Amino acid sequence: MIRAGIIGATGYAGGELVRLLSGHKNVEIKWFGSKSYIDKKYAEVYRNMFEIVDDVCLDDNIGELAKQVDVIFTATPQGYLASILTEEILSQVKIVDLSADYRLKDVKVYEEWYKIEHKSPEFIKEAVYGLCEINRDKVKGARLIANPGCYTTCSILTAYPLVKEGLIDADSIIIDAKSGTSGAGRGAKVPNLFCEVNENIKAYGVTTHRHTPEIEEQLGYAAGKEIKVNFTPHLVPMNRGILVTEYASLIKRAGEDGVMKYPSYEQVKAAYDKYYAKEKFVRVLEKDVCPETKWVEGSNYVDVNFKIDERTGRIIMMGALDNLVKGAAGQAVQNMNLLFGQKESEGLELVPMFP
Amino acid sequence: MIRAGIIGATGYAGGELVRLLSGHKNVEIKWFGSKSYIDKKYAEVYRNMFEIVDDVCLDDNIGELAKQVDVIFTATPQGYLASILTEEILSQVKIVDLSADYRLKDVKVYEEWYKIEHKSPEFIKEAVYGLCEINRDKVKGARLIANPGCYTTCSILTAYPLVKEGLIDADSIIIDAKSGTSGAGRGAKVPNLFCEVNENIKAYGVTTHRHTPEIEEQLGYAAGKEIKVNFTPHLVPMNRGILVTEYASLIKRAGEDGVMKYPSYEQVKAAYDKYYAKEKFVRVLEKDVCPETKWVEGSNYVDVNFKIDERTGRIIMMGALDNLVKGAAGQAVQNMNLLFGQKESEGLELVPMFP
Amino acid sequence: MIRAGIIGATGYAGGELVRLLSGHKNVEIKWFGSKSYIDKKYAEVYRNMFEIVDDVCLDDNIGELAKQVDVIFTATPQGYLASILTEEILSQVKIVDLSADYRLKDVKVYEEWYKIEHKSPEFIKEAVYGLCEINRDKVKGARLIANPGCYTTCSILTAYPLVKEGLIDADSIIIDAKSGTSGAGRGAKVPNLFCEVNENIKAYGVTTHRHTPEIEEQLGYAAGKEIKVNFTPHLVPMNRGILVTEYASLIKRAGEDGVMKYPSYEQVKAAYDKYYAKEKFVRVLEKDVCPETKWVEGSNYVDVNFKIDERTGRIIMMGALDNLVKGAAGQAVQNMNLLFGQKESEGLELVPMFP
Amino acid sequence: MIRAGIIGATGYAGGELVRLLSGHKNVEIKWFGSKSYIDKKYAEVYRNMFEIVDDVCLDDNIGELAKQVDVIFTATPQGYLASILTEEILSQVKIVDLSADYRLKDVKVYEEWYKIEHKSPEFIKEAVYGLCEINRDKVKGARLIANPGCYTTCSILTAYPLVKEGLIDADSIIIDAKSGTSGAGRGAKVPNLFCEVNENIKAYGVTTHRHTPEIEEQLGYAAGKEIKVNFTPHLVPMNRGILVTEYASLIKRAGEDGVMKYPSYEQVKAAYDKYYAKEKFVRVLEKDVCPETKWVEGSNYVDVNFKIDERTGRIIMMGALDNLVKGAAGQAVQNMNLLFGQKESEGLELVPMFP
Repeated sequence: MIRAGIIGATGYAGGELVRLLSGHKNVEIKWFGSKSYIDKKYAEVYRNMFEIVDDVCLDDNIGELAKQVDVIFTATPQGYLASILTEEILSQVKIVDLSADYRLKDVKVYEEWYKIEHKSPEFIKEAVYGLCEINRDKVKGARLIANPGCYTTCSILTAYPLVKEGLIDADSIIIDAKSGTSGAGRGAKVPNLFCEVNENIKAYGVTTHRHTPEIEEQLGYAAGKEIKVNFTPHLVPMNRGILVTEYASLIKRAGEDGVMKYPSYEQVKAAYDKYYAKEKFVRVLEKDVCPETKWVEGSNYVDVNFKIDERTGRIIMMGALDNLVKGAAGQAVQNMNLLFGQKESEGLELVPMFP
Repeated sequence: MIRAGIIGATGYAGGELVRLLSGHKNVEIKWFGSKSYIDKKYAEVYRNMFEIVDDVCLDDNIGELAKQVDVIFTATPQGYLASILTEEILSQVKIVDLSADYRLKDVKVYEEWYKIEHKSPEFIKEAVYGLCEINRDKVKGARLIANPGCYTTCSILTAYPLVKEGLIDADSIIIDAKSGTSGAGRGAKVPNLFCEVNENIKAYGVTTHRHTPEIEEQLGYAAGKEIKVNFTPHLVPMNRGILVTEYASLIKRAGEDGVMKYPSYEQVKAAYDKYYAKEKFVRVLEKDVCPETKWVEGSNYVDVNFKIDERTGRIIMMGALDNLVKGAAGQAVQNMNLLFGQKESEGLELVPMFP
Repeated sequence: MIRAGIIGATGYAGGELVRLLSGHKNVEIKWFGSKSYIDKKYAEVYRNMFEIVDDVCLDDNIGELAKQVDVIFTATPQGYLASILTEEILSQVKIVDLSADYRLKDVKVYEEWYKIEHKSPEFIKEAVYGLCEINRDKVKGARLIANPGCYTTCSILTAYPLVKEGLIDADSIIIDAKSGTSGAGRGAKVPNLFCEVNENIKAYGVTTHRHTPEIEEQLGYAAGKEIKVNFTPHLVPMNRGILVTEYASLIKRAGEDGVMKYPSYEQVKAAYDKYYAKEKFVRVLEKDVCPETKWVEGSNYVDVNFKIDERTGRIIMMGALDNLVKGAAGQAVQNMNLLFGQKESEGLELVPMFP
Repeated sequence: MIRAGIIGATGYAGGELVRLLSGHKNVEIKWFGSKSYIDKKYAEVYRNMFEIVDDVCLDDNIGELAKQVDVIFTATPQGYLASILTEEILSQVKIVDLSADYRLKDVKVYEEWYKIEHKSPEFIKEAVYGLCEINRDKVKGARLIANPGCYTTCSILTAYPLVKEGLIDADSIIIDAKSGTSGAGRGAKVPNLFCEVNENIKAYGVTTHRHTPEIEEQLGYAAGKEIKVNFTPHLVPMNRGILVTEYASLIKRAGEDGVMKYPSYEQVKAAYDKYYAKEKFVRVLEKDVCPETKWVEGSNYVDVNFKIDERTGRIIMMGALDNLVKGAAGQAVQNMNLLFGQKESEGLELVPMFP
């Protein structure tokens, strides 16, 4: 049995980790960390867990935790893990960090977008960006996994094959993202009240959202150069789900007849299939079928598809995932499976729930 | 492997059966029956099933089906199974009927409330009412299971211990029930459109809802006499979930001091525990905690609790379940497990999804 | 022009008052009181008011306010008005109090249910319970209006004619109420977050909700005796709207043939018409039509109807209103109109918005 | 009194026309046309209208209607008005057409995108595109108004000043639009059922939505050249509201120092103010405030704002309106007011409803 500890077990992502790990046959959760609810029964914080989880919430003590478990999941605010991580801890335990602390390789970019000082930049280099479909091999041998953001997982996987294959102009990418409200966390804030979110849609963090540099860095690796994208998140009146609609200019190439042409449907489809045909958790939908968040709810799937617009020379790429699963806890478990030699989909073979 | 066939696989209850059976390690679905979508790929009707189910929908042919499978689930309109069931079929295959055709023992009551003629009343007697927590032993040896209704499962389990133990006046029971919209089915009707249901709540079927006699019959068995209840369903703007709030007059008994008293919290709690303490799928909540549908969503649990009101001499009992799981497909699988000697919770150990 | 001041203008009820008074041709709002947002532009707190309201929020200063305006609306927490009201203020200005401070005539009942000491019980006697349809004449000459609660307005108006006419046993009344989430106010609390309320329904305050004694007092006047009722509120995932479903035992009377009978549909309908036929804001629906909250949204209407169940000898009464309009701000404006000799419906002729 | 007739009074846009016209002091609705509900009381189709509208629905008879009323609103499927309009009718009555029949000046474009033959192209030329803020003067003298589409009204008004002033490259415009579900109409279709829309978001009509050429034509006039845009609509789980997020490349200009620069915040703001400062129904929000659909719900406002992204050289423009008001019925009434010399905002001074 893999012994797991969670720091930040009472946020929505932490709660989802508990749900998923409870169904994982080779994992035992040994530590339900929650600064806000110390000594309170976990099942009183999340009553769906009544008679399923009997533990009480514990304080954060990563040193003690490192001795007791094999893997620590940190579902904590930005800057927290960076402020407490040490070589000693990393020598004892694997860490899957759901915060952004080790996602960006350039510490200056981190500090600029997150407006906080990074307290342990020495671990950034070894941290592996845990987007399993792309970095699977690196994940396997890592000690520290930077689990990708929810928007970024969806945004990157939706565009990755086309950027990698050079079918689109990576600098033309515009990402219009829509998220359910669980992405905003369980903090008690007026803008997240039911009556403020319900029957409403808005953009937020326009031009300043912190997932922007993460997308740029990862798609930049695929493009083989630095890129800049526009990323605009929106808040949608639903609990779960992220949908991204991405726009990019297609690159014309000379066809057999020497005429410059946009890539065809088949060529674009082939690019997606090249990277995803064997991926269990990425589903390239059938022609003309648009992804919908409901079709992946509760599961670890990402559904992607695209539509070519010859009129404008652009392609519209679409991707959908459950922000708490593939966008957070599910991907964290997928990373854990890779770290510990488990079947990659262990505990994640969840059929999406509809309706 | 248990070979299963579904007639009516493209309704919401049928879809949920597919979801649950897909996760059951000893079941293989051999027949996705759907009159409306013959020859269409199942995953085109429910795209959450893309790359999970490859089958196409088949026509209804219970005779052929009976030869090919071990168990048939019928998630069909009222009257359908009654019109085609024969001894020959029942001698070949077990049937779990999610419709109401064999739930009521008195065929006249059925015909009065459902306004249709019953075409095979000869099987009513042998059919077992598949409320597992109450009829577990009878279910095990049955050929034909009448899978209880969604409202009825919730209504009966919430009141059963108190009726059985004589703590309340069974004729005083008033059931005010609230259901998510999946209970209305996937038929294209104006009253079920998003804009008609959203931001709205209403009662419907007041005094005439067909689950009324089913509740009366089953609670009548517990009471040891015929009873009449008021049952009022309401439509709530959410996908899943049923909450029942039940009111009944408490019966005073002489205490040790000879004074007539209402039952105490402890006495009522003891009654619930007597019947449910060992039941995996019925959770009697802690004192003063009111059941919420979200805490059972996606799972086979029923959460129940109560509050005594000495001012009025009444008790308020509350119960919550997921209408598509414990209220339909989950209970059907639970019955199948009993029929085939499986662990009763096999395929049903689903952790409720929150949020 | 009637000069109005609002204390508590930034809660949901306060916001609705601003919306309604903005559309009232004879009212000018002179004071937007909000302790939480002093000096902030009102339109920054409620951006729907951008370019409609230019004022900034002011501190609470009832003494100063009393000099500047003709009427004060207090949309404040329980106990606030009671703690600051004086004879001097009341001699200068009319007050419509949306809190519960002066609704209950028995100060002990108030203190028992609200768990706070009443600081100015000397004004309770003169306060008029502002349920316009019932107390219209008393309202006209009052100085201090106790504007009824949202649940209570709906609960009382739904049952009033039958209690008054003695058609039902008032002690058998059970009120199962369902409310949208704006009733919970704009306070930042975890249970009111979108993800906690959405896709969920629950009862709360079972047997202890503070609107219970208010209903009992008012229906008790109608019954001509003290009564006790069960009142159970539920939280529904929608912004606005209250639906009550009320159960009561019908009283049999001797018919012309001397046989004891339950009242007929026509008799009950006549009772409703007796009190409401001329009431603009109470709509008795056509036979068998159940009230829906969406049909009154944004308006000052209460829709009521009923269904007789001869099987159980009970009647099911139903009522629907918009909790922020007829359940709060709309009724407050209706009271103001009566106080100042305005047409009772002035500023309230709002057509319900659908969908 | 202006006598008005509505053809298509029982769709959602028709229903909203009834709501708005009921509150217009100089209008009387003489004809509630609805082919689907002939002879049925209008208030039985929309029960919010109970005791407000007493009329019954009438068949479509435009010839008769033209004789009885001053203005006809057609809220009908595409192609309907084109198939019945004649010079005789137009000589008798003003028409405000909420369908798309006369919005596009090039009949070939209409036939290509709508896939139907245009039956009366002879009236296209004289029809005035009723976007009041832009075509106010032309509207005043017209006989036939092509009332703009919901998405188009929002999309055009959001970008218009910047296109007109040449601050952005009109061919770079990408419009990502999100709509509430009332835009899909009241037809009984599975994809519009509550359980299919709720807790879900998806794109639809990608590259093929019919509002695309309408936007291109109108913004093309502003640009002074033909343009092509990408337009992608999304379905959001809410009743009302459209939000558009538009992306475009800013055009650099030489500053006073001769250096090429992107327009500043002040320059862009000045462009918006130039066109909208005096417009009652277009609100240019304060800096950094993103439009939200809830802030305009139920009203005729369009809220717009923008954010400059120097990193990518693009601007993000945002606009929000209520699709049934400014996006349909409200704008139709605004056009009617202009046609009949009424105050332009008569009947439209509706304060947005929040929450």
